[in-house]
Amino acid sequence: MKVFRKLLTFDEAQQVIQQCFKPKPLSIEEIPLLEAYNRVLAEDVTATLNIPPFNRSTVDGYAVRAEDTFGAEESKPVSLKFCGTVNVGEPPKIKVPCGTAAEIVTGAPIPEGADAIVMVEHTVLKDDDVFVYNAVAKDENVMEAGSDIQKGETVLKAGQLLHSREIGVLAALGLAKVKVYAVPHVAVLSTGAEIVEPGKELPHGRIYDINAHSLSTAVLESGGDPLYMGVFPDDMAELQKALKHAMASTDMVITSGGVSAGPKDVMPQTLNSLGKPGVIVCGISIKPGKPTTVALIDEKPVFSLPGHPTSALLIFHLLVRPIIQGMAGRKMEKTQKVKTFAAIRMFPARGRRTFVMVRLKRDESNRLIAEPVPVGLSGAITTLAKADGFIEIGENQQFIDAGEEVAVHLFRRNDCLLV
Amino acid sequence: MKVFRKLLTFDEAQQVIQQCFKPKPLSIEEIPLLEAYNRVLAEDVTATLNIPPFNRSTVDGYAVRAEDTFGAEESKPVSLKFCGTVNVGEPPKIKVPCGTAAEIVTGAPIPEGADAIVMVEHTVLKDDDVFVYNAVAKDENVMEAGSDIQKGETVLKAGQLLHSREIGVLAALGLAKVKVYAVPHVAVLSTGAEIVEPGKELPHGRIYDINAHSLSTAVLESGGDPLYMGVFPDDMAELQKALKHAMASTDMVITSGGVSAGPKDVMPQTLNSLGKPGVIVCGISIKPGKPTTVALIDEKPVFSLPGHPTSALLIFHLLVRPIIQGMAGRKMEKTQKVKTFAAIRMFPARGRRTFVMVRLKRDESNRLIAEPVPVGLSGAITTLAKADGFIEIGENQQFIDAGEEVAVHLFRRNDCLLV
Repeated sequence: MKVFRKLLTFDEAQQVIQQCFKPKPLSIEEIPLLEAYNRVLAEDVTATLNIPPFNRSTVDGYAVRAEDTFGAEESKPVSLKFCGTVNVGEPPKIKVPCGTAAEIVTGAPIPEGADAIVMVEHTVLKDDDVFVYNAVAKDENVMEAGSDIQKGETVLKAGQLLHSREIGVLAALGLAKVKVYAVPHVAVLSTGAEIVEPGKELPHGRIYDINAHSLSTAVLESGGDPLYMGVFPDDMAELQKALKHAMASTDMVITSGGVSAGPKDVMPQTLNSLGKPGVIVCGISIKPGKPTTVALIDEKPVFSLPGHPTSALLIFHLLVRPIIQGMAGRKMEKTQKVKTFAAIRMFPARGRRTFVMVRLKRDESNRLIAEPVPVGLSGAITTLAKADGFIEIGENQQFIDAGEEVAVHLFRRNDCLLV
Repeated sequence: MKVFRKLLTFDEAQQVIQQCFKPKPLSIEEIPLLEAYNRVLAEDVTATLNIPPFNRSTVDGYAVRAEDTFGAEESKPVSLKFCGTVNVGEPPKIKVPCGTAAEIVTGAPIPEGADAIVMVEHTVLKDDDVFVYNAVAKDENVMEAGSDIQKGETVLKAGQLLHSREIGVLAALGLAKVKVYAVPHVAVLSTGAEIVEPGKELPHGRIYDINAHSLSTAVLESGGDPLYMGVFPDDMAELQKALKHAMASTDMVITSGGVSAGPKDVMPQTLNSLGKPGVIVCGISIKPGKPTTVALIDEKPVFSLPGHPTSALLIFHLLVRPIIQGMAGRKMEKTQKVKTFAAIRMFPARGRRTFVMVRLKRDESNRLIAEPVPVGLSGAITTLAKADGFIEIGENQQFIDAGEEVAVHLFRRNDCLLV
């Protein structure tokens, strides 16, 4: 049951993946607003009340009818009768008839009759008389009901990430709970006879597994919840068992290793044995990441990435992350890009879309320069740890010349971008 | 026990805060590597082994002595004796004497005697003879021990944030646990007679509390763990009780409201009643955020922010966030800045350092423009929700002119920054 390996181009692979998976939010759940940080809003939020809900004073002073103060000035105050006090946090118990003034503090509701507030600094209270030394216009020092948020206004949209300011807006509307998209669960496992789980003893001839840890973390970074399953041998029966368990308990499975053309690379056959349609991408004409294999099994996506840590994490970034983001209801953001200049001439691998890891730096004229990270071998985890991002070279492009303007897809924020 | 209110300049306030709190990491804890995402490494990590730990083949093929293949070419192969197979994941059971070749797969250790690998594509096996059609140089297709990470090399530094690539490096070294800085715990409460917790009924004359939610989320964003305490009245006895509880259970306390000069603004007196030295900053000559009050009580910092949501979150950003980051062992990053051009002329408040909320956009010649968000009143939560960042205007600066180059401190990543 050998799987036929026909390399797809990068664009073809992306198309097949998008068509087969149609990533969309899995489900909606209602959670406490306090737990909603970094979650994705699942519905438009419309204000059910005005913010503020009533006309409020923005200063400490006296609530008056503005026209009663007309003509008041430093040398010629207007005298009004003190008519009571308006407290903050409760409906006014008094009204303000013509010729009177009510004491009021910041945030308190404007009492009936009043239409402006004179600041306390511009008044003198003497027995029952309030002397006003400054005229005010209608609505002066009044924050009108609905002036911040109008009842019926859509204040947040489905798909928005909830950070401190969005959560502040929801709190303002009195919402203690919020509907968000469920977090996709993603199983992560590594395969290979030579790899050993970190924390265990390392027999001679073996190396520690990197991918199950780095890919689990990458799942978190993409808005998913990883199920770390550890390391499995290149054994079809064991892998079948592990993958069945993974598919039963999660929404997506990511494996690494076992996808090259070697005799022990049993992953494609194993995937095809588990359900229909099975393998839908079996190798992509890219560098690195050529053996990347993708399957759809009983409607669950399985991504089988190369064993080399740098390749695995790059392919995750290019192909898997957008699907997890889609399932999480996040905008399927492309990798963020910055405009730079190539430090040296860079060649693609013949006929393959090529991704070159680069670091960013500023040159003497303050231009942003992209400098390839010495690749060594794609097994090198340090290659990736040193890179700020990557440059993409088209399969039909001859080269990118030194000094040529080129976009860098960022792995992370970089201080070079800031002033 | 009225607190004397002497306004500090913004720079003085920053100095007092830095001197009194000397923020440094609270403690160190060892946690599973799988839970280390977004935590801060608490010690330098030095490689205790070479990565890879042994010389590995990077291809499928035959392990040979390079000099045995010299002169081999397409039309004139060299013939070597097949001397066995090297498996991946175990020490080689064979040696490679002169004139022989051992079958080997990618990742397997190089057997004794061999110093290069001929790719399988350049060989033909016929009975016990391996015909080599391509000469190889010494070390060709061999990844040397320590070529990715050298034993003894410092691979990560204390203070680094752990993301997928750093966690990959730690896994490569076989570390299943990692020492990180403890997360600072921060109590958050709001005060005010007129505010009501979200989720409760809203009596007339009151408004929903925003700050306890938005500031709790801001604590999370800064690397702290918030303890949400909700809403308290402007009552000294109740506030004393709440603050004592907060200080006993957390590393820092943030309150909002009750710090203006009004009769119900009891926070400064309350803070002074709780311990020494008490209030160390009582008002800052800035706009917005003038009533900001800071106390040090039994070595715990207490930040009492203004009640207005936009002011509270801005002051958090300017003064509180760096302290939390310092306690979390994170780099005390200044707010990230981008270079822009002012959309219109902007004036400071007289004699006060002024912060103007702005949105970013691109103009027709693709320049990044900073446009003030209509402020309305600083109570307006929507002001903040719409802003991408803020511009700082010095207390002695006359104005920032339209078209003048000006730095924007970013609240969030903005697509305008990217190509």
